[in-house]
This record gives sequence, C-alpha cells and structure tokens, in this order.
Amino acid sequence: MTKRIIIDTDPGVDDALTFLLALASPEIKLEALTTVQGNVTIEKATRNALSVLELVQASQIPVVQGCSHPLLKTPHNSGEAVHGQSGIGKSVLPEPTSKPIEGHAVDYLIERVLAEPDELSIFPIGPLTNIALAIRKEPRFAKAVKELVIMGGAIRSGGNITPLAEFNINEDPHAAHIVFHSGIPITLVPLDATYKCLLTSDDVERLNKIDSPIARFVRDATATYMDFYLKYEGFKGCALHDPLTLAVIFASEIFTFEDHYVDVDISGGISTGKTFADFMRVAKKPSNIKVALDVRGRDFVELFLERMETLSRSISD
Amino acid sequence: MTKRIIIDTDPGVDDALTFLLALASPEIKLEALTTVQGNVTIEKATRNALSVLELVQASQIPVVQGCSHPLLKTPHNSGEAVHGQSGIGKSVLPEPTSKPIEGHAVDYLIERVLAEPDELSIFPIGPLTNIALAIRKEPRFAKAVKELVIMGGAIRSGGNITPLAEFNINEDPHAAHIVFHSGIPITLVPLDATYKCLLTSDDVERLNKIDSPIARFVRDATATYMDFYLKYEGFKGCALHDPLTLAVIFASEIFTFEDHYVDVDISGGISTGKTFADFMRVAKKPSNIKVALDVRGRDFVELFLERMETLSRSISD
Amino acid sequence: MTKRIIIDTDPGVDDALTFLLALASPEIKLEALTTVQGNVTIEKATRNALSVLELVQASQIPVVQGCSHPLLKTPHNSGEAVHGQSGIGKSVLPEPTSKPIEGHAVDYLIERVLAEPDELSIFPIGPLTNIALAIRKEPRFAKAVKELVIMGGAIRSGGNITPLAEFNINEDPHAAHIVFHSGIPITLVPLDATYKCLLTSDDVERLNKIDSPIARFVRDATATYMDFYLKYEGFKGCALHDPLTLAVIFASEIFTFEDHYVDVDISGGISTGKTFADFMRVAKKPSNIKVALDVRGRDFVELFLERMETLSRSISD
Amino acid sequence: MTKRIIIDTDPGVDDALTFLLALASPEIKLEALTTVQGNVTIEKATRNALSVLELVQASQIPVVQGCSHPLLKTPHNSGEAVHGQSGIGKSVLPEPTSKPIEGHAVDYLIERVLAEPDELSIFPIGPLTNIALAIRKEPRFAKAVKELVIMGGAIRSGGNITPLAEFNINEDPHAAHIVFHSGIPITLVPLDATYKCLLTSDDVERLNKIDSPIARFVRDATATYMDFYLKYEGFKGCALHDPLTLAVIFASEIFTFEDHYVDVDISGGISTGKTFADFMRVAKKPSNIKVALDVRGRDFVELFLERMETLSRSISD
Repeated sequence: MTKRIIIDTDPGVDDALTFLLALASPEIKLEALTTVQGNVTIEKATRNALSVLELVQASQIPVVQGCSHPLLKTPHNSGEAVHGQSGIGKSVLPEPTSKPIEGHAVDYLIERVLAEPDELSIFPIGPLTNIALAIRKEPRFAKAVKELVIMGGAIRSGGNITPLAEFNINEDPHAAHIVFHSGIPITLVPLDATYKCLLTSDDVERLNKIDSPIARFVRDATATYMDFYLKYEGFKGCALHDPLTLAVIFASEIFTFEDHYVDVDISGGISTGKTFADFMRVAKKPSNIKVALDVRGRDFVELFLERMETLSRSISD
Repeated sequence: MTKRIIIDTDPGVDDALTFLLALASPEIKLEALTTVQGNVTIEKATRNALSVLELVQASQIPVVQGCSHPLLKTPHNSGEAVHGQSGIGKSVLPEPTSKPIEGHAVDYLIERVLAEPDELSIFPIGPLTNIALAIRKEPRFAKAVKELVIMGGAIRSGGNITPLAEFNINEDPHAAHIVFHSGIPITLVPLDATYKCLLTSDDVERLNKIDSPIARFVRDATATYMDFYLKYEGFKGCALHDPLTLAVIFASEIFTFEDHYVDVDISGGISTGKTFADFMRVAKKPSNIKVALDVRGRDFVELFLERMETLSRSISD
Repeated sequence: MTKRIIIDTDPGVDDALTFLLALASPEIKLEALTTVQGNVTIEKATRNALSVLELVQASQIPVVQGCSHPLLKTPHNSGEAVHGQSGIGKSVLPEPTSKPIEGHAVDYLIERVLAEPDELSIFPIGPLTNIALAIRKEPRFAKAVKELVIMGGAIRSGGNITPLAEFNINEDPHAAHIVFHSGIPITLVPLDATYKCLLTSDDVERLNKIDSPIARFVRDATATYMDFYLKYEGFKGCALHDPLTLAVIFASEIFTFEDHYVDVDISGGISTGKTFADFMRVAKKPSNIKVALDVRGRDFVELFLERMETLSRSISD
Repeated sequence: MTKRIIIDTDPGVDDALTFLLALASPEIKLEALTTVQGNVTIEKATRNALSVLELVQASQIPVVQGCSHPLLKTPHNSGEAVHGQSGIGKSVLPEPTSKPIEGHAVDYLIERVLAEPDELSIFPIGPLTNIALAIRKEPRFAKAVKELVIMGGAIRSGGNITPLAEFNINEDPHAAHIVFHSGIPITLVPLDATYKCLLTSDDVERLNKIDSPIARFVRDATATYMDFYLKYEGFKGCALHDPLTLAVIFASEIFTFEDHYVDVDISGGISTGKTFADFMRVAKKPSNIKVALDVRGRDFVELFLERMETLSRSISD
C-alpha cells in the first residue's frame, strides 16, 4: 500500500533530494509540497520547489506557499552559502513555468487533512511554522492528520547551529513546541541518525555514470554542500538529513527507534532550540514521540543511490 | 468623522461594557467583533458576544470566532469566577438567535484589512492571539491595518495576574511580542490608566434610575466583578479596563500619553508577560508604542455613565 | 542614639559623597568601609576609599577589600567614564598613605556582625556580592546583622543600565537574589527615590563659597557626573543615589515607604536584574522589603548641602 | 608518584565508597575531606565523613565543614531515601569520636592550595558550592589549584534529576557555571561514564566472603541504593558514580576522553542544570574541559572490588 504524503519544505539541497527520492519510491505517493522559509526565503523556497518538480517532470504536483517568518525568532535564512543563490547548490535551475496554487499552505494543509481524516502523512523537513499555525488555527487539525515524520533535533548529538540545537528546530523552536505537544503521532529523525547517512563524492560519481539531468542535478546540488561539510565539519560527503525521513516508510528496519517523552527548550536561554528526550523518565510524562536514535547509514545511502539511478535512467534530456 | 473599528474580544464583563459604549458613541462605527479565548473559552466568548449584541438590538454586527488557544501557554480561562458562568457576571443572557459568520477571525481580519487598507482600527481587548496569527499568516496585514488600540500591560503598575504581568498580555505573551514588533501603529492602554477608572456601586445605582435592560445588564454584569475587587484588591467598584480604550477616540485629552520603546518579556522566567517601557532610553531603540501612562479616571467614568444613560433611555423592554 | 554602620561600597562619585555625609552626620558612627568591584575595579575601589578617608582626615576608619568579581556575571566596571580614572570624577586624589586592613571583606563582615549581634547596620551602595557571600558562607550572619539599607533597584522607574534594571542590582543580580531572600530586615532605596535628589551646579557653587578641600572635592568629583547626566539623561545636576540611603537614619520623614514582597529577576532573559514589588499581592507572599517609593528630593539636597558646608568649614587646607 | 588529593564531598553512599577506594589505592594520598550539602544536610555530611574515616581507621585525615546551602537554588537534600537516615544506606555508623577541624572548607581549600601551588588536586563529588566560593573569594585560587576531577553532568546521557540534568550539577548549577569558566584544568566524569560502572549484588556477595567491617559496610551501604535503582531505574546493581573519578588517576586507560567546550545552563528554564559539550564546535570557543564520554565499566568494577578486598583483609574487627 502506498503512503500518501505531503512534504512541508524549505528547499534547500537535501529538501530537493527528498522530492526526488519520494518520486523514485513506489511506496510513496507525493500529494503536494507546502513551502516555508528556513534555508532560504519563502519566495525562493517556492520557486525552488516548482523548479525541481519541473526538472523531474512532476509539475502536476501542487506547490502551496506558506509562512515567510518564524513565529517569534528573527529568520536566519543564512542557508544561501550552502544552499545556493540562483538554484540549489551549484545547480542552475530554470525559472519554473508552473505556479504555486492559490491560497496559503496553512489553509491548504487544514483543508486537505480535514477532507480525508487519518489519511495523509505530513513530512516536515524545514522549520515547523506551517504545522504549528495549522494546529493553532484549526483545533481539529491535530486529530485528523495521520502522522508527522519530522527531520529535526539533536538528541544525544551536538547541535549544528548552536552547541545544543539543530537548525530546523532552532529556526522556530516555538513552532516545534506547539507541534510536539499537539497529540499528533510523531516520528522524529534527528541528527543522531541523519549524520550517519553521508553521500560521498564517489557516490555522486557513480550516479553520474548515467547521463541524465537528475544525476547532474544531484552532482551540482550537493557540490557546495560537500565543500561546506569539508570546511566546517571536517568530513568528505554530505549528510542526507531530509531524504532519510522517507526511509521511515520503505526501510524502517534500518532504524533504531525508541519511544520517549520529547520536548524542546523555548526559554530564550543558552539551550533554546534543544530537543531532548527524557531517557530516565524522571519527568514521569508519557512518551509523545518515536525517535530515530540510530540508523544503518550506509544501507540508506545505498538505497538512495539505487533509486536515484532508476530515476536517472527514466529521465533523459 | 466616525472611526471604523473592529473589537477583538474575550467577553468578559468589561468587554461587554465596551460593546455597549461603542454603540453608544457617535464617534465610533463598530464594524465587527472577533472573538478569542481569554477570560472564557472561545465558545463562550462567541456566545456572549452574540448575546450582548442581541440585548442591545445590534445583531446586524458580524461576530467571527477566532483562536481557542494561546500560541504557547496553557489557557487560563479562570475568569468564570469573575466573568460569570451562564452569562456575564450575574447577568443571565438569553441564547443568542443569530450565529457567528462562517470562517475564522484571523482570515476575517486579514480580508477586511486588506480590502480597505489604512481604514480599519482594531481594538484588541483580550489576549493578542488572533492579531499575532494574522500578522504571521499574511505579511501584508501589518502594513494595511490603520492602528491597534490595545488594553493590556502594566508599565509602572504592578501586574494583576503575576507580580509583573497583566492578564491579557500574560495570557499570550508570545502573541504580544509578535504584535509589539510588527510595525503597526499601537496605542497601549495599560493598568496604569485603567485602574484609575473605577465604576462604583453608586454609579450603577444612578444608572438604574432608568428602567432599561441596558441599565440592568450593567448592574448584573458588574456585580460579581465588584465583589471580586472588594475581596482581592480591596476597593469598592470595578475598573473599566476595556471600555477605556474607546476614550482614545472620543476623549483623548483625558490621557497622559508617552511614546516609548515598549517590549514584553517572553523568557519563561519570573518576569514572563511583563510589559515594559524603556523610560531612560538605554536600549537606544526607536519608540514603537504610544502608552497611556495616566488618565483622569473620574472624567472617563462620567463620560461612560452619560453614554450608558443615553443608551438605556433608547432601549427599553 | 547614634547608629553604627558599615558602608559596603564601590567608590565611585556618589559613594564618596556618602562617606562625607556619614562623617558629617552626628546621628551616624561610621565603623568601617568594605569594598567591592562595581563602578570600578576592586583595587581602585579600595584605593579610592582610602584616599577619600584621608582627604577628610578620617584614616582611622578601617577599609577592608572584598570581592573582585560578581558571582556570575562578567564585571562591567565601565564606570570610569563617569567615575574617573585617577581619582573620582575630575578630582585627583593623592595616593593614600594608609592601607586596607588584612583579610577579606566577607570575613570582616561576618566577624564584626557575629561579635555584636543586632548592633551593626550595613549600607551596601554597590553590587551585593560581599553581602551575598557572607550570607552563604556563614548561615548565622543573616540572623545577626541588624539591617541592610541598600541603594539599588528601579521599581516603577525605568532602569538605568537596561530598560528594566538598575546598575547595582544588575551588576550582580544573583547576589541581590540571595540578599533579598535572606530574611535580613532590608530597606531599599531605588531609583524611584534617588532620581528625585538632584544636586545642581548652583548647589556646588554655593558650597564652594567655603574654601575647603571638601568643597573642592565635591565640585571636582561631581563635574564629570554632571556632564554625563546632561549628555545621556538630559538633566542638569547629578543624582545623589548613594548618599540618600543615609537619610533613612536622620530624615526618614522625607520618604514614602511601603512594605512589599520584592524580588529580582535572574532568569537570564530580557528582564534580568529587574527589581520588582508585588503591589497587588498576587504572589501571596509576605513582605520582605521596605521600599522607598518616593522622597521629597529637594529637602534631602538641602540637608546634604548644609552638612557638607559644616564639614567644609571644619576641614581647611 | 602518588597524587595528593582533597575530596570535596556530600556523603552519601558512593561518596563513602570513594573514600574507601582512595585509602585502598597506593597511587593516591588523601589529604583531606571537605564537606558540602547535597545528598544530605551539611551537618550529616560532616558526621558521615568522620564516621567513615573512623570505620576505616583513618581518623587522622582532616575533615572540614563547608557550605550548607547552594548559591541560589533551594537545597534538595532528598537523598535520605537513598543515602540513609542514621548512617549511609542501611549501615549504622557509630557517632564519630573525632571532630571536624576549625574553620570553613572554603578557607581551608584556599589556604591549602595557595600554600602549595600546583600540588593539590581536588575531587569534587558533590555540588560545586565550596569550589565556586573559593574561586570567587580568592582570585588566586583558580591559578594555584592543580586540577579538578569532577563527578557530574550528563552529556549525551539523559539526566537523573531532570530530563536534562544530573544531580550534583543541578543542585548548584550556578556554582558549576563559575567552576567551568574558572580556567582551572578540569576532568569531568559524567553519567555517560558512571552509569556503565554497576556494582551488582553478586559483587557485594563476593566481597563479603571476607569477614571485615569494610566488606559489611559496602554491603549495608549499597543495599538501599540497589533497592532504589531496581525500583526507579530498572536495573539490579548500583552505579559507582563517585568512585569512578579516582580511576582517572590509576586507570585512565579505561576511559574514552574528549576535549570540548563544556558549559552548563543556568537560564532558569527547562534545561537548567544541563551540562553540554559543543561537539560540532559551533560556538567556536576553546575546549575548557576533558570529558569522560565512555568507560570500560566492568574493568573499573573489577579494580574496585580487588582494592576493596585488599582493604577488607587489612582491616578486621
């Protein structure tokens, strides 16, 4: 049975790879993309989403624009160095010919979810602003959405934007707080898992033995990202943070999941944006989140590559 | 020239008195009521709004229901002791025969304001959740709304819900933070002014020399409130917090206003919800709010009474 | 009956004026000065204390050096612009010939207070680091000290170092928290009172009709301070913050005191260092501090001037 | 070469085992015990320290009493359920015949360390109040102490007193903040390592094949502790938190150490007391602490047992 999903996204290199992987996965039906500011501004996020869908000949998938600003924090949007100025990474994406559909992502999410309760899974791979606003605007939303599979947080890992916080959660910690306490079934895929899924330059070379705009896009999109990782985090390759969320659908066996009471710090202090699990159950609160604390990273990268190869073969110039 | 206003409200005793005063004021055209949880739950807020309009034969004014939950805090809704269980105070309001109009207050506010830029003033006299969501959902909202006149905050005064915080702001300090930093022209009417406007039982008696459902409603609505004030705050009478905002329109000369950089604490610490002004300009930030730091309170109460008397005379059983 | 006091101080212009006023007041017996970093570094605070005592021919009064660093905050010590580099203000004080007595101010305070329980009043007019350490090091200290009269805080007033916080409290808010909750009887003299006590240049001129090193010191010490006030706070004259504490002894009738539950914010958020009173008693905690919320400022300045004149006449070159 | 150490302690079951292990280790010269409130009140901590030294015939080792209260937090002292009412665990310790030496632990630490700069290592295995006060009272202390080996914190591990915080650090996070930023060379032994060192009931039985007051004390002292662990943390055995610090001296090869920038949250928010390492170096601050992130736990327990056996054989009734 295919899973029907909406990806809520701020593309972004690994966001784009996530769309590709979703389209390459027979287990998944990608119903829509909703955009949010994060790695890039909202206008660019929407444009990138449309462009990537066009590249992969999937312009029929609706794109809906969402929030341009986190609930309370000043937007960071510093992702341009990593995520590219005129496209994604070093890729140069064409101006999209299609347009986002009318209306606001928050209303779109509410309408879609209320129209088919318990049918749609949402995969937020950017800041959680849209999801939080949907929850607060429409109290029935939280009960009707099937589940959230979120890329975000650093549980045992250190943070990648502050010593304690991961980028997506830290960009809108207040939104994360609303989402984590909403009662929606949540699977969280934090840095603890995603940093084990490293796409290397050898992997990209292997993929590019196929002559396809897809393969070339993966190469160009990840080039800047890999430079960044080498320079600042000291390893060759780039982490497939966002695409890993999809493996929860088609390769759940590669994960080590644990159910925990998970919360996020919104104190405004040094730990703001920290996503933590109460491992020793000292807070005596029920588990609210299923966390991917580990993953067989190389297994995922192999799956990713195979599916990219298949997709590349199916789409030629 | 009459001022066209929308009141965003969580009725509540003094909210209801505000509707009455607006309808009794020739300088004001009340265009709509939008509701928000606060003193009471959202369902009750909406019902009370409709009932009071019915009482005053103004059911043609649209009521739109808004947010049922503050952005991040757990709702307080403890106002029932003060604000009444089956109506407002000791008043027993009939089931309203009219209904709220379809849709969400946040969307209604956005649509009305964008349809007539710089024409509509909003008077939020409850928690600021609706206004904050409108700002975050539609970036053009803040530029198109004419102004906000907000009942909220305690600047030099002590707080009435924590030592530092006033109820409306404290109920959703994160919303207040969004609103205060939105760039919208704001007039703030804090406890520093409102606690000087005390309606006494003598005042209520004087009004009830007129035999009118309006006069009786004022009596019944304020009865519990007066008991509460006597018990907890030690004075006889009740403060006309919310109605005072309207005097900014028709009696601005009774106020002492100052322009200041005003902000609200959302740290989660002991001062959460504190609304403060940077009197000594140590933050070196431009003024963002015009604050009513003082008012000739008795002058306002007299104005209030006169208008209630006129309204009472015009509406009999 | 004369009151026996120890002044805990970070001199500083108005600290120095406080020593002079104490020595000029027959109601007061100044037993010692203990120094603390604050306006200036600890070394300079101690040197200034010794120099001023020498100037006023009171070198017999012991000076004991205390803490060089606030409990947790990074020291500010930015007072040099206001408080002078080689002396106090524009005064050039001679190298002192006497020395501080051996040992640490914290131990000195503990020993003196335990030796004569309920006899000694301490007047802290700088950050509260020494007092807090004495409380934590020796649990009997809080019970044995007669009282504290503290210059610090801004209750209804705005802060002078952040929008909410006054310098002394903000420099070591954690120390203030320890002191306020120690159970010691406390009188607090905040900016609400002290900013009403403005010494003008006319006042200084009047004093300098007497030819005395004291009068000249007052003139030179306050000169920079007055420049600072004119530039940053827009009024001519300088506030006699610290000296006003002594008026609690000899002119208590000029104050408006209220007993309140008073606390200080140590959250690390925007209100850190805010000293607040629970005016509406919403915290339902017993009063712990007697606060000077108002003062007849000019009355104090006249008293100050008269005593300075007497002192000036008694000490000539 | 033997290492000369002072243990700063709040005994406490595993504190007592630490004294025994120190005395049983030829690599270590235990110079003194300084006490601090934490697991138990200060009076009881001191009494327990003296009693345990008497049990092990080491009453010549000086015991000095220290702080009875954390810097800012309300003391917890809830350790009695775990750590025993009339002794340690279920052990019944005799009233000690020796007395603590005169003076305060803070002064003792300062004097000892300044008398022999760079000679003495301090092993704080309770809250860090004494060490923090020594740092603040005497600026030369931090430069003269050779090193600190601290039991405290939970880096990747969950906390054992809040979801994020470990007991010792959480009991006085402000003291920990002072210590971590003091410049003193620090080795930190957090829960990440200590929870791998589980003493089982089989281990205790094996030890008690030797008929000795030492073996019996280990049995009685750990009995309650083991019950507690079984009930609340679900495993049989008790963690040798504090004794593990000593292995840094005589078995450093069993640890996995990493140098990191380590800090502690004192915001007052949900993460207060969290000790964290900046693994990804996003704060760009130099390493200040060597952290034991892992240990070969069973290897340590074997070493502990062997040394307890030797000690037990040397001390009979």
